[in-house]
Amino acid sequence: MPEAMSRVYIALLHHPVYNKNGEIVTSAVTNLDIHDIARVTKTYGLGGYFIVNPDKEQRKIALDICRHWTSGFGSTYNKARKNALSEVSVTSTLEETIEILRKKEGVEPELMATSALEDPQAGDRMISYREAGELIAGKKAPVIILFGTGWGLSSDTMKKAKHLLPPISAGNKYNHLSVRSAVSIITDRLFQFSK
Amino acid sequence: MPEAMSRVYIALLHHPVYNKNGEIVTSAVTNLDIHDIARVTKTYGLGGYFIVNPDKEQRKIALDICRHWTSGFGSTYNKARKNALSEVSVTSTLEETIEILRKKEGVEPELMATSALEDPQAGDRMISYREAGELIAGKKAPVIILFGTGWGLSSDTMKKAKHLLPPISAGNKYNHLSVRSAVSIITDRLFQFSK
Repeated sequence: MPEAMSRVYIALLHHPVYNKNGEIVTSAVTNLDIHDIARVTKTYGLGGYFIVNPDKEQRKIALDICRHWTSGFGSTYNKARKNALSEVSVTSTLEETIEILRKKEGVEPELMATSALEDPQAGDRMISYREAGELIAGKKAPVIILFGTGWGLSSDTMKKAKHLLPPISAGNKYNHLSVRSAVSIITDRLFQFSK
Repeated sequence: MPEAMSRVYIALLHHPVYNKNGEIVTSAVTNLDIHDIARVTKTYGLGGYFIVNPDKEQRKIALDICRHWTSGFGSTYNKARKNALSEVSVTSTLEETIEILRKKEGVEPELMATSALEDPQAGDRMISYREAGELIAGKKAPVIILFGTGWGLSSDTMKKAKHLLPPISAGNKYNHLSVRSAVSIITDRLFQFSK
Protein backbone atom coordinates (compact mmCIF):
# COMPACT_ATOMS: atom_id res chain seq x y z
CA MET A 1 0.00 0.00 0.00
CA PRO A 2 1.51 3.32 -1.03
CA GLU A 3 2.39 5.25 2.12
CA ALA A 4 1.96 8.58 0.31
CA MET A 5 -1.82 8.23 0.07
CA SER A 6 -2.09 7.99 3.87
CA ARG A 7 -1.30 11.72 3.99
CA VAL A 8 -4.26 12.53 1.72
CA TYR A 9 -7.53 13.59 3.35
CA ILE A 10 -10.85 14.26 1.67
CA ALA A 11 -13.06 17.13 2.81
CA LEU A 12 -16.62 17.23 1.47
CA LEU A 13 -17.92 20.75 2.02
CA HIS A 14 -21.66 21.43 2.39
CA HIS A 15 -20.93 25.15 2.93
CA PRO A 16 -20.04 27.56 1.38
CA VAL A 17 -21.30 26.03 -1.88
CA TYR A 18 -23.43 27.37 -4.71
CA ASN A 19 -26.98 26.29 -5.45
CA LYS A 20 -28.50 26.05 -8.93
CA ASN A 21 -29.03 29.83 -9.01
CA GLY A 22 -25.47 30.74 -8.00
CA GLU A 23 -26.40 31.65 -4.41
CA ILE A 24 -24.23 30.53 -1.50
CA VAL A 25 -26.05 27.94 0.60
CA THR A 26 -25.57 25.07 3.03
CA SER A 27 -26.46 21.78 1.32
CA ALA A 28 -27.96 18.76 3.05
CA VAL A 29 -26.01 15.61 3.90
CA THR A 30 -26.60 12.76 1.39
CA ASN A 31 -26.49 9.22 2.75
CA LEU A 32 -24.57 7.75 -0.18
CA ASP A 33 -21.99 10.57 -0.12
CA ILE A 34 -21.07 9.26 3.32
CA HIS A 35 -20.93 5.58 2.31
CA ASP A 36 -19.38 5.80 -1.14
CA ILE A 37 -16.63 8.25 -0.20
CA ALA A 38 -15.83 6.38 3.04
CA ARG A 39 -15.37 3.20 0.96
CA VAL A 40 -13.03 5.05 -1.44
CA THR A 41 -11.10 6.43 1.57
CA LYS A 42 -10.62 2.94 3.02
CA THR A 43 -9.89 1.21 -0.31
CA TYR A 44 -7.15 3.68 -1.25
CA GLY A 45 -5.71 3.89 2.29
CA LEU A 46 -6.28 7.63 2.63
CA GLY A 47 -5.69 9.43 5.93
CA GLY A 48 -9.38 10.12 6.47
CA TYR A 49 -12.60 11.69 5.25
CA PHE A 50 -14.18 14.84 6.71
CA ILE A 51 -17.84 15.69 6.22
CA VAL A 52 -18.00 19.45 6.74
CA ASN A 53 -21.35 21.03 7.55
CA PRO A 54 -22.01 24.09 9.76
CA ASP A 55 -25.58 22.98 10.49
CA LYS A 56 -25.84 21.14 13.81
CA GLU A 57 -28.85 19.03 12.74
CA GLN A 58 -27.08 17.99 9.55
CA ARG A 59 -23.96 16.98 11.49
CA LYS A 60 -26.17 14.90 13.79
CA ILE A 61 -27.69 13.10 10.77
CA ALA A 62 -24.20 12.33 9.44
CA LEU A 63 -22.99 11.11 12.84
CA ASP A 64 -26.11 8.96 13.35
CA ILE A 65 -25.54 7.25 9.99
CA CYS A 66 -21.88 6.60 10.84
CA ARG A 67 -22.75 5.25 14.30
CA HIS A 68 -25.36 2.88 12.91
CA TRP A 69 -22.61 1.21 10.92
CA THR A 70 -19.69 1.55 13.34
CA SER A 71 -21.37 0.57 16.62
CA GLY A 72 -25.07 0.00 15.90
CA PHE A 73 -26.85 -2.85 14.11
CA GLY A 74 -24.93 -2.26 10.90
CA SER A 75 -21.59 -2.98 12.56
CA THR A 76 -22.47 -6.65 12.98
CA TYR A 77 -24.44 -6.88 9.72
CA ASN A 78 -21.60 -5.66 7.48
CA LYS A 79 -18.04 -5.51 8.86
CA ALA A 80 -16.59 -4.06 5.64
CA ARG A 81 -18.94 -1.11 5.96
CA LYS A 82 -17.95 -0.68 9.61
CA ASN A 83 -14.29 -0.45 8.60
CA ALA A 84 -15.07 2.17 5.95
CA LEU A 85 -17.28 4.36 8.12
CA SER A 86 -14.63 4.37 10.87
CA GLU A 87 -12.67 6.67 8.50
CA VAL A 88 -15.31 9.42 8.69
CA SER A 89 -15.08 12.58 10.83
CA VAL A 90 -17.76 15.25 10.98
CA THR A 91 -16.72 18.90 11.36
CA SER A 92 -18.38 22.33 11.21
CA THR A 93 -15.98 24.28 9.03
CA LEU A 94 -12.93 23.91 6.81
CA GLU A 95 -10.95 25.87 9.41
CA GLU A 96 -11.85 23.33 12.12
CA THR A 97 -10.81 20.53 9.76
CA ILE A 98 -7.44 22.19 9.10
CA GLU A 99 -6.91 22.71 12.84
CA ILE A 100 -7.61 19.03 13.61
CA LEU A 101 -5.06 17.93 11.01
CA ARG A 102 -2.50 20.53 12.10
CA LYS A 103 -2.67 19.10 15.63
CA LYS A 104 -2.67 15.48 14.47
CA GLU A 105 0.20 15.76 11.99
CA GLY A 106 2.16 18.60 13.65
CA VAL A 107 2.41 20.50 10.37
CA GLU A 108 0.18 22.78 8.29
CA PRO A 109 -1.92 20.81 5.78
CA GLU A 110 -1.97 21.96 2.16
CA LEU A 111 -5.25 22.47 0.32
CA MET A 112 -6.00 21.21 -3.19
CA ALA A 113 -9.39 22.28 -4.55
CA THR A 114 -11.47 20.54 -7.20
CA SER A 115 -14.08 21.97 -9.54
CA ALA A 116 -16.19 20.86 -12.48
CA LEU A 117 -15.55 24.25 -14.11
CA GLU A 118 -12.42 25.78 -15.62
CA ASP A 119 -11.25 28.68 -13.44
CA PRO A 120 -10.03 31.51 -15.69
CA GLN A 121 -8.19 32.99 -12.67
CA ALA A 122 -6.38 29.73 -11.86
CA GLY A 123 -2.98 30.71 -13.30
CA ASP A 124 -0.13 28.54 -12.07
CA ARG A 125 -2.14 27.25 -9.12
CA MET A 126 -3.66 24.73 -11.57
CA ILE A 127 -1.55 21.56 -11.69
CA SER A 128 -2.03 18.31 -13.62
CA TYR A 129 -3.03 15.05 -11.91
CA ARG A 130 0.48 13.76 -12.56
CA GLU A 131 2.02 16.80 -10.84
CA ALA A 132 -0.45 16.45 -7.95
CA GLY A 133 0.37 12.75 -7.48
CA GLU A 134 4.10 13.42 -7.55
CA LEU A 135 3.67 16.30 -5.14
CA ILE A 136 1.79 14.02 -2.72
CA ALA A 137 4.47 11.34 -3.05
CA GLY A 138 7.29 13.81 -2.32
CA LYS A 139 5.65 15.67 0.50
CA LYS A 140 5.64 15.07 4.21
CA ALA A 141 2.72 17.40 4.94
CA PRO A 142 -0.90 16.24 4.82
CA VAL A 143 -2.92 17.29 1.80
CA ILE A 144 -6.65 18.01 1.99
CA ILE A 145 -8.57 17.57 -1.27
CA LEU A 146 -11.60 19.86 -1.21
CA PHE A 147 -14.84 18.79 -2.86
CA GLY A 148 -18.03 20.84 -2.99
CA THR A 149 -21.57 19.52 -2.89
CA GLY A 150 -24.46 21.28 -4.67
CA TRP A 151 -23.23 23.38 -7.60
CA GLY A 152 -19.66 23.55 -6.30
CA LEU A 153 -17.30 25.32 -3.88
CA SER A 154 -17.61 29.09 -3.42
CA SER A 155 -14.97 31.19 -5.18
CA ASP A 156 -13.68 32.35 -1.76
CA THR A 157 -13.03 28.71 -0.80
CA MET A 158 -11.30 28.07 -4.13
CA LYS A 159 -8.99 31.01 -3.36
CA LYS A 160 -7.85 29.40 -0.08
CA ALA A 161 -6.36 26.41 -1.93
CA LYS A 162 -2.66 26.39 -2.81
CA HIS A 163 -3.34 24.08 -5.77
CA LEU A 164 -6.28 23.53 -8.09
CA LEU A 165 -6.99 20.24 -9.88
CA PRO A 166 -8.38 20.31 -13.43
CA PRO A 167 -12.05 19.49 -14.06
CA ILE A 168 -12.63 15.88 -15.09
CA SER A 169 -13.44 16.05 -18.75
CA ALA A 170 -13.45 13.62 -21.63
CA GLY A 171 -13.18 16.36 -24.21
CA ASN A 172 -16.93 16.55 -24.20
CA LYS A 173 -19.00 19.64 -23.46
CA TYR A 174 -20.88 17.65 -20.81
CA ASN A 175 -19.22 17.08 -17.43
CA HIS A 176 -21.86 16.71 -14.78
CA LEU A 177 -20.53 13.93 -12.59
CA SER A 178 -21.86 13.29 -9.10
CA VAL A 179 -19.46 14.28 -6.32
CA ARG A 180 -19.25 10.54 -5.51
CA SER A 181 -17.96 9.82 -9.03
CA ALA A 182 -15.59 12.81 -8.94
CA VAL A 183 -14.04 11.71 -5.63
CA SER A 184 -13.63 8.15 -6.95
CA ILE A 185 -11.95 9.19 -10.20
CA ILE A 186 -9.71 11.87 -8.67
CA THR A 187 -8.54 9.54 -5.88
CA ASP A 188 -7.73 6.83 -8.43
CA ARG A 189 -5.75 9.29 -10.59
CA LEU A 190 -3.78 10.63 -7.61
CA PHE A 191 -3.06 7.07 -6.51
CA GLN A 192 -1.78 6.12 -9.99
CA PHE A 193 0.61 9.07 -10.04
CA SER A 194 1.78 8.83 -6.40
CA LYS A 195 3.13 5.28 -6.76
CA MET B 1 -14.15 13.52 -27.86
CA PRO B 2 -12.57 10.13 -28.41
CA GLU B 3 -14.75 8.25 -30.86
CA ALA B 4 -13.63 4.90 -29.40
CA MET B 5 -15.59 5.38 -26.17
CA SER B 6 -18.85 5.72 -28.13
CA ARG B 7 -18.62 1.96 -28.76
CA VAL B 8 -18.50 1.22 -25.03
CA TYR B 9 -21.74 0.32 -23.27
CA ILE B 10 -22.29 -0.25 -19.57
CA ALA B 11 -24.61 -3.01 -18.36
CA LEU B 12 -25.54 -2.98 -14.67
CA LEU B 13 -26.88 -6.45 -13.85
CA HIS B 14 -29.33 -6.97 -10.98
CA HIS B 15 -29.51 -10.70 -11.79
CA PRO B 16 -27.84 -13.19 -11.60
CA VAL B 17 -25.82 -11.68 -8.73
CA TYR B 18 -24.78 -12.97 -5.33
CA ASN B 19 -26.15 -11.76 -2.04
CA LYS B 20 -24.17 -11.52 1.21
CA ASN B 21 -24.53 -15.29 1.76
CA GLY B 22 -23.36 -16.32 -1.71
CA GLU B 23 -26.88 -17.11 -2.97
CA ILE B 24 -27.98 -16.04 -6.45
CA VAL B 25 -30.64 -13.34 -6.21
CA THR B 26 -32.24 -10.43 -8.07
CA SER B 27 -31.23 -7.15 -6.43
CA ALA B 28 -33.38 -4.03 -6.25
CA VAL B 29 -32.84 -0.96 -8.39
CA THR B 30 -31.02 1.86 -6.53
CA ASN B 31 -31.93 5.42 -7.48
CA LEU B 32 -28.37 6.77 -7.41
CA ASP B 33 -27.07 3.85 -9.49
CA ILE B 34 -29.30 5.19 -12.25
CA HIS B 35 -28.25 8.83 -11.87
CA ASP B 36 -24.53 8.49 -11.15
CA ILE B 37 -23.83 5.96 -13.90
CA ALA B 38 -25.96 7.86 -16.45
CA ARG B 39 -23.87 10.96 -15.70
CA VAL B 40 -20.63 8.97 -16.21
CA THR B 41 -22.05 7.59 -19.48
CA LYS B 42 -22.82 11.08 -20.78
CA THR B 43 -19.61 12.72 -19.49
CA TYR B 44 -17.37 10.12 -21.16
CA GLY B 45 -19.46 9.93 -24.35
CA LEU B 46 -20.21 6.21 -24.00
CA GLY B 47 -22.65 4.45 -26.34
CA GLY B 48 -25.22 3.92 -23.61
CA TYR B 49 -26.12 2.46 -20.23
CA PHE B 50 -28.34 -0.59 -19.71
CA ILE B 51 -30.07 -1.31 -16.41
CA VAL B 52 -30.74 -5.05 -16.50
CA ASN B 53 -33.38 -6.48 -14.19
CA PRO B 54 -35.69 -9.47 -14.87
CA ASP B 55 -38.27 -8.21 -12.38
CA LYS B 56 -41.07 -6.28 -14.10
CA GLU B 57 -41.84 -4.10 -11.07
CA GLN B 58 -38.17 -3.19 -10.72
CA ARG B 59 -37.94 -2.26 -14.39
CA LYS B 60 -41.02 -0.05 -13.95
CA ILE B 61 -39.34 1.76 -11.02
CA ALA B 62 -36.22 2.36 -13.12
CA LEU B 63 -38.26 3.61 -16.08
CA ASP B 64 -40.38 5.89 -13.87
CA ILE B 65 -37.24 7.50 -12.45
CA CYS B 66 -35.82 8.02 -15.96
CA ARG B 67 -39.08 9.48 -17.26
CA HIS B 68 -39.37 11.92 -14.36
CA TRP B 69 -36.08 13.44 -15.52
CA THR B 70 -36.42 13.04 -19.29
CA SER B 71 -40.03 14.14 -19.82
CA GLY B 72 -41.53 14.84 -16.37
CA PHE B 73 -40.97 17.73 -13.97
CA GLY B 74 -37.25 17.01 -13.68
CA SER B 75 -36.69 17.64 -17.39
CA THR B 76 -37.37 21.35 -16.99
CA TYR B 77 -35.82 21.59 -13.50
CA ASN B 78 -32.41 20.22 -14.51
CA LYS B 79 -31.50 19.95 -18.20
CA ALA B 80 -28.10 18.37 -17.52
CA ARG B 81 -29.81 15.50 -15.72
CA LYS B 82 -32.27 15.13 -18.62
CA ASN B 83 -29.35 14.73 -21.02
CA ALA B 84 -27.73 12.10 -18.81
CA LEU B 85 -30.88 10.03 -18.20
CA SER B 86 -31.61 9.96 -21.95
CA GLU B 87 -28.64 7.56 -22.14
CA VAL B 88 -30.40 4.90 -20.04
CA SER B 89 -32.15 1.79 -21.40
CA VAL B 90 -33.91 -0.78 -19.22
CA THR B 91 -33.78 -4.47 -20.22
CA SER B 92 -34.73 -7.82 -18.71
CA THR B 93 -31.63 -9.90 -19.37
CA LEU B 94 -28.07 -9.71 -20.60
CA GLU B 95 -29.14 -11.69 -23.68
CA GLU B 96 -31.77 -9.08 -24.54
CA THR B 97 -29.14 -6.36 -24.11
CA ILE B 98 -26.73 -8.16 -26.45
CA GLU B 99 -29.51 -8.63 -29.01
CA ILE B 100 -30.39 -4.91 -28.97
CA LEU B 101 -26.77 -3.95 -29.58
CA ARG B 102 -26.31 -6.64 -32.25
CA LYS B 103 -29.24 -5.14 -34.16
CA LYS B 104 -28.15 -1.53 -33.58
CA GLU B 105 -24.48 -1.98 -34.51
CA GLY B 106 -24.82 -4.86 -36.98
CA VAL B 107 -22.07 -6.84 -35.28
CA GLU B 108 -21.74 -9.08 -32.22
CA PRO B 109 -20.79 -7.07 -29.10
CA GLU B 110 -17.90 -8.27 -26.96
CA LEU B 111 -18.30 -8.71 -23.22
CA MET B 112 -15.80 -7.47 -20.61
CA ALA B 113 -16.66 -8.45 -17.05
CA THR B 114 -15.63 -6.69 -13.85
CA SER B 115 -15.26 -8.06 -10.34
CA ALA B 116 -14.01 -6.91 -6.95
CA LEU B 117 -12.45 -10.35 -6.46
CA GLU B 118 -9.48 -12.04 -8.15
CA ASP B 119 -10.70 -14.94 -10.28
CA PRO B 120 -8.25 -17.86 -9.94
CA GLN B 121 -9.75 -19.35 -13.15
CA ALA B 122 -9.24 -16.16 -15.17
CA GLY B 123 -6.14 -17.27 -17.09
CA ASP B 124 -5.44 -15.19 -20.19
CA ARG B 125 -8.97 -13.80 -20.25
CA MET B 126 -7.72 -11.25 -17.66
CA ILE B 127 -6.30 -8.18 -19.38
CA SER B 128 -4.87 -4.95 -17.96
CA TYR B 129 -6.72 -1.63 -18.18
CA ARG B 130 -4.13 -0.48 -20.70
CA GLU B 131 -4.78 -3.54 -22.88
CA ALA B 132 -8.54 -3.05 -22.55
CA GLY B 133 -8.31 0.63 -23.56
CA GLU B 134 -6.13 -0.18 -26.57
CA LEU B 135 -8.49 -3.00 -27.54
CA ILE B 136 -11.45 -0.59 -27.42
CA ALA B 137 -9.54 1.99 -29.48
CA GLY B 138 -8.61 -0.57 -32.14
CA LYS B 139 -11.93 -2.34 -32.40
CA LYS B 140 -14.96 -1.64 -34.52
CA ALA B 141 -17.31 -3.86 -32.49
CA PRO B 142 -19.25 -2.56 -29.49
CA VAL B 143 -17.97 -3.59 -26.06
CA ILE B 144 -20.29 -4.16 -23.11
CA ILE B 145 -18.70 -3.69 -19.69
CA LEU B 146 -20.58 -5.88 -17.19
CA PHE B 147 -21.03 -4.72 -13.61
CA GLY B 148 -22.82 -6.64 -10.89
CA THR B 149 -24.89 -5.18 -8.07
CA GLY B 150 -25.16 -6.84 -4.65
CA TRP B 151 -22.13 -9.05 -3.93
CA GLY B 152 -21.16 -9.33 -7.60
CA LEU B 153 -21.86 -11.16 -10.87
CA SER B 154 -22.56 -14.91 -10.81
CA SER B 155 -19.69 -17.12 -11.92
CA ASP B 156 -21.79 -18.27 -14.91
CA THR B 157 -22.06 -14.65 -16.06
CA MET B 158 -18.32 -14.14 -15.58
CA LYS B 159 -17.75 -17.15 -17.86
CA LYS B 160 -19.70 -15.53 -20.70
CA ALA B 161 -17.23 -12.64 -20.94
CA LYS B 162 -14.39 -12.78 -23.46
CA HIS B 163 -12.27 -10.50 -21.26
CA LEU B 164 -12.04 -9.88 -17.53
CA LEU B 165 -10.86 -6.61 -15.99
CA PRO B 166 -8.74 -6.69 -12.82
CA PRO B 167 -10.29 -5.75 -9.47
CA ILE B 168 -9.65 -2.13 -8.48
CA SER B 169 -7.11 -2.33 -5.73
CA ALA B 170 -4.66 0.04 -4.13
CA GLY B 171 -2.52 -2.77 -2.79
CA ASN B 172 -4.67 -2.82 0.27
CA LYS B 173 -6.59 -5.80 1.60
CA TYR B 174 -9.73 -3.70 1.58
CA ASN B 175 -11.53 -3.11 -1.72
CA HIS B 176 -15.21 -2.59 -1.09
CA LEU B 177 -16.13 0.18 -3.48
CA SER B 178 -19.71 0.94 -4.41
CA VAL B 179 -20.66 -0.09 -7.94
CA ARG B 180 -21.08 3.64 -8.65
CA SER B 181 -17.42 4.24 -7.73
CA ALA B 182 -16.25 1.18 -9.65
CA VAL B 183 -18.05 2.27 -12.84
CA SER B 184 -16.59 5.79 -12.49
CA ILE B 185 -13.00 4.62 -11.99
CA ILE B 186 -13.07 1.89 -14.64
CA THR B 187 -14.60 4.21 -17.25
CA ASP B 188 -11.94 6.83 -16.50
CA ARG B 189 -9.15 4.26 -16.82
CA LEU B 190 -10.50 2.90 -20.13
CA PHE B 191 -10.86 6.46 -21.43
CA GLN B 192 -7.24 7.30 -20.50
CA PHE B 193 -5.96 4.25 -22.37
CA SER B 194 -8.26 4.52 -25.40
CA LYS B 195 -7.05 7.99 -26.40
